[in-house]
Amino acid sequence: MSAAPFRHVAVIGLGLLGGSVLRAVQQYLPDSVTTGYDADAGVRARAREIALAGTVADSASEAVTGADLVVLCVPVGAMGAAAKAMASGLSPQTLVTDVGSSKASVMAQLGEALPGHPVIPSHPVAGTEQSGPDAGFATLFRNRWCIVTPPEDADAAQVAALNAFWEALGARVETMDPEHHDRVLAVTSHLPHLIAYTIVGTASDLEEVTQSEVIKYSAGGFRDFTRIAASDPTMWRDVFLSNREAVLEMLQRFTEDLTELQKAIRKRDGDALFDHFARTRAIRRGIIEMGQDDARPDFGRSDHNGSG
Amino acid sequence: MSAAPFRHVAVIGLGLLGGSVLRAVQQYLPDSVTTGYDADAGVRARAREIALAGTVADSASEAVTGADLVVLCVPVGAMGAAAKAMASGLSPQTLVTDVGSSKASVMAQLGEALPGHPVIPSHPVAGTEQSGPDAGFATLFRNRWCIVTPPEDADAAQVAALNAFWEALGARVETMDPEHHDRVLAVTSHLPHLIAYTIVGTASDLEEVTQSEVIKYSAGGFRDFTRIAASDPTMWRDVFLSNREAVLEMLQRFTEDLTELQKAIRKRDGDALFDHFARTRAIRRGIIEMGQDDARPDFGRSDHNGSG
Repeated sequence: MSAAPFRHVAVIGLGLLGGSVLRAVQQYLPDSVTTGYDADAGVRARAREIALAGTVADSASEAVTGADLVVLCVPVGAMGAAAKAMASGLSPQTLVTDVGSSKASVMAQLGEALPGHPVIPSHPVAGTEQSGPDAGFATLFRNRWCIVTPPEDADAAQVAALNAFWEALGARVETMDPEHHDRVLAVTSHLPHLIAYTIVGTASDLEEVTQSEVIKYSAGGFRDFTRIAASDPTMWRDVFLSNREAVLEMLQRFTEDLTELQKAIRKRDGDALFDHFARTRAIRRGIIEMGQDDARPDFGRSDHNGSG
Repeated sequence: MSAAPFRHVAVIGLGLLGGSVLRAVQQYLPDSVTTGYDADAGVRARAREIALAGTVADSASEAVTGADLVVLCVPVGAMGAAAKAMASGLSPQTLVTDVGSSKASVMAQLGEALPGHPVIPSHPVAGTEQSGPDAGFATLFRNRWCIVTPPEDADAAQVAALNAFWEALGARVETMDPEHHDRVLAVTSHLPHLIAYTIVGTASDLEEVTQSEVIKYSAGGFRDFTRIAASDPTMWRDVFLSNREAVLEMLQRFTEDLTELQKAIRKRDGDALFDHFARTRAIRRGIIEMGQDDARPDFGRSDHNGSG
């Protein structure tokens, strides 16, 4: 293995993503020094207990002192404040990146909080429904795409080092401008979460079907949506507020398509339903061929093979 | 183990469900004779190759001759025709059941096709996104609920035998009237499928985001929906046509809730978003506590542990 792209990596925010970055650095870049910080004292205490970083510092500026790379792993609405809180500890060459799910907003917040400082945002498209300092694991980024959105004046060597960092953690890197990122993710991530949160809420509020029935018969499809709808509420509130326009636009398209299927059901138009349902299989095949999902039926859930 | 509830089980329709019933009978009720039939000659040939039933007959009436239990495993729109096709082979005591996802419509179709004949519909709430004679497996019903909807004049001994049959295959049995079943399943199964089919279609039709981008970045949440949207189109067309009223009603509730979240995003109402997102975790916990989903993060997908 070649030399680590960064000698000292500092992580601000020790939840699922921050914890996974640290675990992955420990596993794949063992020569790199790691420091970490979280605004929540309880999270810092837990992070120390489980040795999430070489050092868990008591302030953000202390955590980033001497770091070559800072990875901001806080909700996108908190990026600006997190950057300001650590600014006094940054040296002028320290590269700052993040893992936020929207990029135009993060770019603007970090530009304002750290004027003139090198910032190259990134978004590893990876996660689980769990959160907190115990949720992270070293292989989260394996075989997942990480989208990097370098500003036009970014230093080419720093872009290359950041790409090498994500690749060392197992990710495949793609470069994009932040506006395009935000439209792509609005459809592949933000809209699916919004819809999952909606349907789980709808099912909880019914009077004629009890919550216990919803739970018992969830294997008919509903349970799939509950996984996504168990994601961190603060993170997702911030995503929708920060990528508002793209989400609203994708939602508009979705609503139009749903209205069309609703009409087909109302008019008993079986051919229209069949035609729609027959063309969605190809995308699943593509996802499996690209190694972006488990090919086994039902995601390989354990309850069919005796362990669930 | 006590005696098999039925000496001879015939299955009409040799797809995922029919194949799983046969595999489960072979595994858990090995003393029972099995016969099978599918209207598609290619499926019958494949079923013979893989020994899906003791005998794969060349007509429906031949398959059910001498059977104590017939399980209709065809799309719900084809139940009436399948029942008529086998009627000449039925003896008066043969119990007829099915595995259809809507029950009021199936009850009406079978009542018309087999007047005066003992019919007790059932619905094992289990499945995968795969279909065809190779898709079935013996453990599909393990730990899943099977809803039985006996008519008021059903023979109590036959109801008990049918319940024992599903329990022998690993299912837990619940009794319900068909109308309530159809409302419960509209929310736990039919609406989730409709929404998944819609969003996968929406994502395929965008101009500004390519299909290849949708596939690459699907791990952000979208890929979960593609599993369900890869389900059998004929089966699902029939579900929506046969459970039209309940689906349209649940869809109406969902649309109202989605409009409310849309408004919250438009008005930048972070508190409303947070409150909604914070209350949907409890349902996921309930599902996991009830053993109705894999408790591991991300359904325990293999791509985090090195095999994907």
